[in-house]
Amino acid sequence: MKTLNEGAYERVSEMIEKSYELGISVIKTKTGSTVLDVGIGSNGSYEAGRLFAEACMGGFGEVSFGVYPGLSIPSVTVQVANPAVACLASQYAGWALKEGDFFALGSGPARSLYCNEPLYSVLEYKETSPIAVLAIESSILPPESLLDSISRKCDVDPRDLYVLVAPTNSLAGAVQIVSRVVETGVHKLFELGYDTTMLIHGYGICPISPTPGDFMTAMGWTNDAVLYGGKVWFTLCDKDSAIDSIAEKLPSASSKDYGLPFSELFKRYNYDFYQVDPMLFSPASVSINNIATGRWQNFGRENLELLRREWFEQ
Amino acid sequence: MKTLNEGAYERVSEMIEKSYELGISVIKTKTGSTVLDVGIGSNGSYEAGRLFAEACMGGFGEVSFGVYPGLSIPSVTVQVANPAVACLASQYAGWALKEGDFFALGSGPARSLYCNEPLYSVLEYKETSPIAVLAIESSILPPESLLDSISRKCDVDPRDLYVLVAPTNSLAGAVQIVSRVVETGVHKLFELGYDTTMLIHGYGICPISPTPGDFMTAMGWTNDAVLYGGKVWFTLCDKDSAIDSIAEKLPSASSKDYGLPFSELFKRYNYDFYQVDPMLFSPASVSINNIATGRWQNFGRENLELLRREWFEQ
Amino acid sequence: MKTLNEGAYERVSEMIEKSYELGISVIKTKTGSTVLDVGIGSNGSYEAGRLFAEACMGGFGEVSFGVYPGLSIPSVTVQVANPAVACLASQYAGWALKEGDFFALGSGPARSLYCNEPLYSVLEYKETSPIAVLAIESSILPPESLLDSISRKCDVDPRDLYVLVAPTNSLAGAVQIVSRVVETGVHKLFELGYDTTMLIHGYGICPISPTPGDFMTAMGWTNDAVLYGGKVWFTLCDKDSAIDSIAEKLPSASSKDYGLPFSELFKRYNYDFYQVDPMLFSPASVSINNIATGRWQNFGRENLELLRREWFEQ
Repeated sequence: MKTLNEGAYERVSEMIEKSYELGISVIKTKTGSTVLDVGIGSNGSYEAGRLFAEACMGGFGEVSFGVYPGLSIPSVTVQVANPAVACLASQYAGWALKEGDFFALGSGPARSLYCNEPLYSVLEYKETSPIAVLAIESSILPPESLLDSISRKCDVDPRDLYVLVAPTNSLAGAVQIVSRVVETGVHKLFELGYDTTMLIHGYGICPISPTPGDFMTAMGWTNDAVLYGGKVWFTLCDKDSAIDSIAEKLPSASSKDYGLPFSELFKRYNYDFYQVDPMLFSPASVSINNIATGRWQNFGRENLELLRREWFEQ
Repeated sequence: MKTLNEGAYERVSEMIEKSYELGISVIKTKTGSTVLDVGIGSNGSYEAGRLFAEACMGGFGEVSFGVYPGLSIPSVTVQVANPAVACLASQYAGWALKEGDFFALGSGPARSLYCNEPLYSVLEYKETSPIAVLAIESSILPPESLLDSISRKCDVDPRDLYVLVAPTNSLAGAVQIVSRVVETGVHKLFELGYDTTMLIHGYGICPISPTPGDFMTAMGWTNDAVLYGGKVWFTLCDKDSAIDSIAEKLPSASSKDYGLPFSELFKRYNYDFYQVDPMLFSPASVSINNIATGRWQNFGRENLELLRREWFEQ
Repeated sequence: MKTLNEGAYERVSEMIEKSYELGISVIKTKTGSTVLDVGIGSNGSYEAGRLFAEACMGGFGEVSFGVYPGLSIPSVTVQVANPAVACLASQYAGWALKEGDFFALGSGPARSLYCNEPLYSVLEYKETSPIAVLAIESSILPPESLLDSISRKCDVDPRDLYVLVAPTNSLAGAVQIVSRVVETGVHKLFELGYDTTMLIHGYGICPISPTPGDFMTAMGWTNDAVLYGGKVWFTLCDKDSAIDSIAEKLPSASSKDYGLPFSELFKRYNYDFYQVDPMLFSPASVSINNIATGRWQNFGRENLELLRREWFEQ
């Protein structure tokens, strides 16, 4: 049985081996950790973003490319076995990383070695692994001292720490963020108090937002891709009543903050992230197939008009 | 030149290596055969279903995931080189397996070792292989005595027999069944007396039906996915006249039993499978490109209304 | 850092290993070169065409299959990192191969070893590699003397030369040609004088044209697939003004020769290729995302009516 970190490392080693073709850079720190620059001093690519996203899911998920139905733009398709583990214990960006001026959120399976987030006790998940893989959304490389502290917290030798870094406004950044479409749905279920270990499978599609020059616009566009274009299909095994009580709250449209482009909303809240309604962070459409009863229901729908206006009529 | 069974084994060994991530279990029998439980005591996954389906085609076909056009649900795309061999000699479920109370249909390349079905003499195909891969659609594991008899009939050491088992009402079960969309078209051509060795290539798309709690509903839904949503494109090299005589009979709509959900039809026939019109078992849409003349024709079309009503308005 | 030729060879070795499943033949010449017959004396397959196309891009691009939106037919999705190198230095068919009666255009990374085309000085790209991979669109195998001359020009041992050959009117031929959809856009930009090294990424979708019996019809249909069905999304980093001056000329519709099926146009010009407006050779739709400013614009659109009439109403 592979750990999430070992599953992630399979993708990381593929990225290292193909770094030239993927348009990424591999950097060794003084203490021997490996940093993959997937879009800061490098161009990156959609393919690099795909492998980045699969690494974040610890090997439990696959990402492929297509065209988003109804809107003629590229899209990702994501499938995830064991969504609670792959999405929450691994893919979710739950580790706040600080060191001097540097601040970023860490995601990926290394979090499950540190296990310093409340969700791990709910999930009752913790792993030990000879290797640690952490993903960081950032426009600058993390300081080496931070990496050393990460390897200590993950209880791995610094030489066994692999860190992937991609800016929000980069090709791979956009791909790895919109590939969180299933995770966004799992996290919403978690926030609504649902027992996510009842989830058997997740499947999702999300448009790949275009890449702007600045972080702030990129944050808006990648969020809008999920909130207004993300569609997720869950398979679970549970009582129908366990879903009934929360079903209406699943899609983004259930939030009072639904309807504005994220960047406008953010501005309205004076750029204070914590004033945004947490219930907004959901896919546009969530379908639930309860394998116990065969019921298949859909909640919410995509908002192509908003995406078209935002991306094509600037 | 690899045998179908060796091609299938490449997928099987990948399934064994990734069993944890795929959500499946690997069981060794007393005599050393390997059984992969892809959805009985395990959850399985779409990815497990994809590999299951590719194993069934003996390495001659590939399955990928997308979204079904016109109906916002997950779908499989299937491509098959050498359809007569990949679909009939390998993927088709033509081996009736009985042992005590256990009954199931076996599919996959092991059939071409036993060669106990009339179609093998028509296709003039038989292989010997050091390894045998058989796939079984069943909600219970096959008895060990049956597996020993299978390895004897396939003339392989019991330790070289690999058996994949997935229930109809499971994630992988649904995926591997709807991935038979091209095979369903090839088999219909075969039943209509067409020389399927003239087929050069098959390509298909099929919605992945949701998963219900019981076998009977699952049988209905997976059948309906193919009959009302399956679309197949064949490339062949032949006289146009060889196709003209059967073309109208290719799509499911040509059957007198077309139009009802399969489960209703089955009930109407008192659950007697053999009363259902065999001509019903076809994709909804069949396109034929005759490479000899360049003609490209399409017969039949999808019935999204029936699928929507059945799956979304329960 | 792998060369384009080494990247291509990874796909070629996969083709050799799976030759039976892919429906292709592997031929050794007297001097030890390897020729892959991907559709002359063999049937080939879409999968063989996919690997052929990826070899042409030297490992910098990936091709996958789906269904073309709006027209119910199979399609390819292509993604390319570093489009100037992958598409122009490698995939473009720019090497005129002549030997006695044999004439064909060579494409793929071996061109970057010979470097005998003006575009290499513009791109400032040249490589040396222990291995050479050349792709040829032809209905007959190239003479062995030609292959020896190719290995000399590429400065590799004849035993290190790998040549892929597929006819225009073959399954793999159609797939590898329509997989040039991004390259067609890159080449158009190049012809318009744009500095293609500013391109960061290319993404495209193109219908897979059906396969006719003769070369001339196949040339028409594969061209029309790109000209009337090809859609490309470029990401680049540049001044907006650098694009403004050429943007309107990007899609095929900007050509005076737009609107007729290619075969009719060709006939009108008395089968003289050089009378066709070079500006016609473009995808139907080109989107440009300028990462420097965040602008995303679309030029041109698909012409489904023409494709439907040509392919389905013969």
